[in-house]
Amino acid sequence: MNITITGASGFLGQKLALRLLNANALQDASGSFSKVEHITLLDVMGPSKELADNPRVTIVTGDIADRSLLEKAIPSSTDSIFHLAAIVSAGAEEDFDLGMSVNLDSTRAILDICRKHETRPKVIFASSCAAFGGDMPNVIADMTARTPQTSYGTQKVIGELLINDYSRKKFVDGRALRFPTVVVRPGRPNKAASTFASSIIREPLQGQPVICPVSPESKMFLASPRSIIENIIRAHNLSSEDWGPSREVTLPGFSMSIGGMVDALRNVAGDIVASRVNWEPDAFIQKIVDGWPPEFDTKKALALGFIRDSSMEEVINAFIEDELSGSIMKN
Amino acid sequence: MNITITGASGFLGQKLALRLLNANALQDASGSFSKVEHITLLDVMGPSKELADNPRVTIVTGDIADRSLLEKAIPSSTDSIFHLAAIVSAGAEEDFDLGMSVNLDSTRAILDICRKHETRPKVIFASSCAAFGGDMPNVIADMTARTPQTSYGTQKVIGELLINDYSRKKFVDGRALRFPTVVVRPGRPNKAASTFASSIIREPLQGQPVICPVSPESKMFLASPRSIIENIIRAHNLSSEDWGPSREVTLPGFSMSIGGMVDALRNVAGDIVASRVNWEPDAFIQKIVDGWPPEFDTKKALALGFIRDSSMEEVINAFIEDELSGSIMKN
Repeated sequence: MNITITGASGFLGQKLALRLLNANALQDASGSFSKVEHITLLDVMGPSKELADNPRVTIVTGDIADRSLLEKAIPSSTDSIFHLAAIVSAGAEEDFDLGMSVNLDSTRAILDICRKHETRPKVIFASSCAAFGGDMPNVIADMTARTPQTSYGTQKVIGELLINDYSRKKFVDGRALRFPTVVVRPGRPNKAASTFASSIIREPLQGQPVICPVSPESKMFLASPRSIIENIIRAHNLSSEDWGPSREVTLPGFSMSIGGMVDALRNVAGDIVASRVNWEPDAFIQKIVDGWPPEFDTKKALALGFIRDSSMEEVINAFIEDELSGSIMKN
Repeated sequence: MNITITGASGFLGQKLALRLLNANALQDASGSFSKVEHITLLDVMGPSKELADNPRVTIVTGDIADRSLLEKAIPSSTDSIFHLAAIVSAGAEEDFDLGMSVNLDSTRAILDICRKHETRPKVIFASSCAAFGGDMPNVIADMTARTPQTSYGTQKVIGELLINDYSRKKFVDGRALRFPTVVVRPGRPNKAASTFASSIIREPLQGQPVICPVSPESKMFLASPRSIIENIIRAHNLSSEDWGPSREVTLPGFSMSIGGMVDALRNVAGDIVASRVNWEPDAFIQKIVDGWPPEFDTKKALALGFIRDSSMEEVINAFIEDELSGSIMKN
């Protein structure tokens, strides 16, 4: 199989690429397992040396808004596309045109390139729980209206609608996955309003103090990088018939208060680590987080066999294992 | 006030234009009533002589996909835009690119032109109950997910999302109205799959036999041209605060079986007229109609003061009055 990943130098993109190269096989359109022969990685900058040096990897570097670059990254031999590239929430709010260009126009361009190939490749589209907002029921179900309150969320819901319609027309075999907030992200804070949810775990484990800008009572809907990667691959491997006419799903996650997250950090790493979290409410961030739906009923995803993390402690331990080589700063 | 109507030569567009010219005043952004000074009518062909000869009317003729034409039709002095132009359901299904261009790209172009003017005009967007479909609850409520099963419905939901986001960003003051199936349309059948719902009333009243392609038990959600025009104007006149953060609404209508519609025709015009309806089921049309949601709970619209027709008999009598000058072929 020939695979293309967009946003491939992001942390999920690189994890997915490594996972696919190691897994060797994926389910193809016929349902049988095929070898992953080649992966094309598209992003504004190149990936890690480990990926760049792999003989089964081609790197395409540049602006995803450039149609000719997309055409180069998605040749007619492409079996599956994982479209992860995005301008995140605060970024798309700051620069409306950039968000429309990357989040909407590039998604449509990818779908149109696939349609032109007439090969009906699988397209796995990363959407977001930012699809929901405003006046909402207490629990978001599969049939709750998507009422995004940000440009990012709007552009993601439009992507879901296009994935559905292009799939119905048999131009592609699409799947749109609404990610919960992913914790714990490695590296530095990004432009997502939710970035603190990773920082309050990541920084204390490495001996750094961190500011938590929201109250301990604030609730978020979370999933770990491990479960997200597993679910992306599951979304790919499910057959077209498994999906049926509706190609979008909210991935399973767990709802937790920010205070509960810090309690889990204490359970895993001790009092000193947990005390590195400093509560300094920021009204701007608090308002954004209060606007997010805290609880989800992901019946459809669970029926389709998508997985859910078992506890915040497990998520923190996985982060320590995957990103900190097992070592934390206890004192 | 300076007003632009797109799709202005369609039957609703012309009715709206005449109504606005006769009403003289509309509520402006400040909430006070202002004189309708000028109306620009945009469509692929010109409107009736009555409209074309009006000194307060400018006609712009051409392809709405042409950006320079749109810019001409929406100068910076524009206070309000009624965006009715669309490729209807079967048309957008037949020609995917044309549907995307007219229903999606032109809607976005209109919003972008308004944004560039920095005048935050009111934009009233004609959406459709084709926003819903597939696996649905028995009754569609305001918070039911939009799950369109046609390209037309997909493009209309995307329009709603853009109206919401451009309004939130204060680029425009938008309102998106989901129309029920409009009966009784005058003139000839169009490319909408629902066109028979008008034909089965219109043709018999004029002495013509007509084929009804669906079973008498099939149900549809209907509204009259009179209530649609009143509700379009109400949508315009409501203030930005009345709308709040959510700029889309399903307009009130009434659910009725096709058999019930023909019974109403019999009540109004007699047995001979009703017997001109010939039942010849067409599996293709039946399947489309069976996919439409039959029942709606339009709580939000009713709270905002939108009106609903009182009976099918009233709707038929209004058609006879407005379109047939009161005369029908009873024998």
